Amino acid sequence: MEFSSKYLEKAIEEISLLPGIGKRTALRLALHLLKQPQAQTTDLATALVDLKTKVKQCKSCHNISDQDICGICKDQSRDQSIICVVEDIRDVMAIENTEQYKGIYHVLGGKISPMDGVGPNQLNIETLVNKVKTGKVKEIIFALSSTMEGDTTNFYIYKQIQSSKLELKTSTIARGISIGDELEYADEITLGRSILQRVPFENSLKN
Amino acid sequence: MEFSSKYLEKAIEEISLLPGIGKRTALRLALHLLKQPQAQTTDLATALVDLKTKVKQCKSCHNISDQDICGICKDQSRDQSIICVVEDIRDVMAIENTEQYKGIYHVLGGKISPMDGVGPNQLNIETLVNKVKTGKVKEIIFALSSTMEGDTTNFYIYKQIQSSKLELKTSTIARGISIGDELEYADEITLGRSILQRVPFENSLKN
Repeated sequence: MEFSSKYLEKAIEEISLLPGIGKRTALRLALHLLKQPQAQTTDLATALVDLKTKVKQCKSCHNISDQDICGICKDQSRDQSIICVVEDIRDVMAIENTEQYKGIYHVLGGKISPMDGVGPNQLNIETLVNKVKTGKVKEIIFALSSTMEGDTTNFYIYKQIQSSKLELKTSTIARGISIGDELEYADEITLGRSILQRVPFENSLKN
Repeated sequence: MEFSSKYLEKAIEEISLLPGIGKRTALRLALHLLKQPQAQTTDLATALVDLKTKVKQCKSCHNISDQDICGICKDQSRDQSIICVVEDIRDVMAIENTEQYKGIYHVLGGKISPMDGVGPNQLNIETLVNKVKTGKVKEIIFALSSTMEGDTTNFYIYKQIQSSKLELKTSTIARGISIGDELEYADEITLGRSILQRVPFENSLKN
């Protein structure tokens, strides 16, 4: 495609570097911005630069934050002895939205995946193990996605924690049939596991 | 959704103002930028501000351009006496991509649409009529989309030009069955018109 303006061309090129946005969508977005008041573009540009320069990682849990320690880690009303291990900050948001969890988090920043060249050293595992070694942690909840990579990562961390010889509860989030789902459409592995790991009926009455 | 960083929240808010991008996509884009090198965000922000501040409208045809007069209007190898009237600059790009047209353009910036509050005065019609009045124009090609609004706009311009009492050819782009389309799936109006406006078989051999 040829453009009559090199600034338009440059803008389209930069916008289309974003994931899921091709040249056509980038053109549509650029033309939209051209029609809007100047302030919208300036605000967008400022917000993007601020995002990149001012957002920090919480030094304790690696969640993103505006301070050195994030609001969740600082919050003394939360149980600091229970750590939920997640892959990225979107998982923190998802769990926070349920309003069911009152412990803290630890964001790994990914999963161990030799295929993608991600080893344990690229992830925030060491800080988690160090946190456990302080002896203040009572439970680790693994909340990674249940893929090969997720299971590998869980097991790697589990072994690291075991080697510290501390008494520590480890758990994973429950897998099973989603609430509202029809049994006949559930996949076999999930359905099979939900029967093997059945829970007392009284427990299901709690929520 | 609650965010652990107000800069992230602000960035998501600004990104989701773009058409077709909701909060979830905005979050995905923001987190993507956080993972990329600083330069990518800076380049994107600069490109957006440049786009808004440096891109001009060609004073002759209203196509977007970096100069006061765009490359197409300046190009003396093009036939400056044939003007193709289009709705917006994407149509210019589409026609340019065919490499079949060697005249110039006139970008209206929209169509007459009382429903959306767009009247003739909001469009670049006056400059077109003035251009015609110079007497240098031999043909006007209407290339608006064939909707009620498009037809209204065509007719309005046609009347304006007629009142100038100049000898001038006016034409519209051909409507018909797309090349490669099956007749049975074509809509009735297009198929009907393509029979009424049939062309000599020899003409179809030209391309």
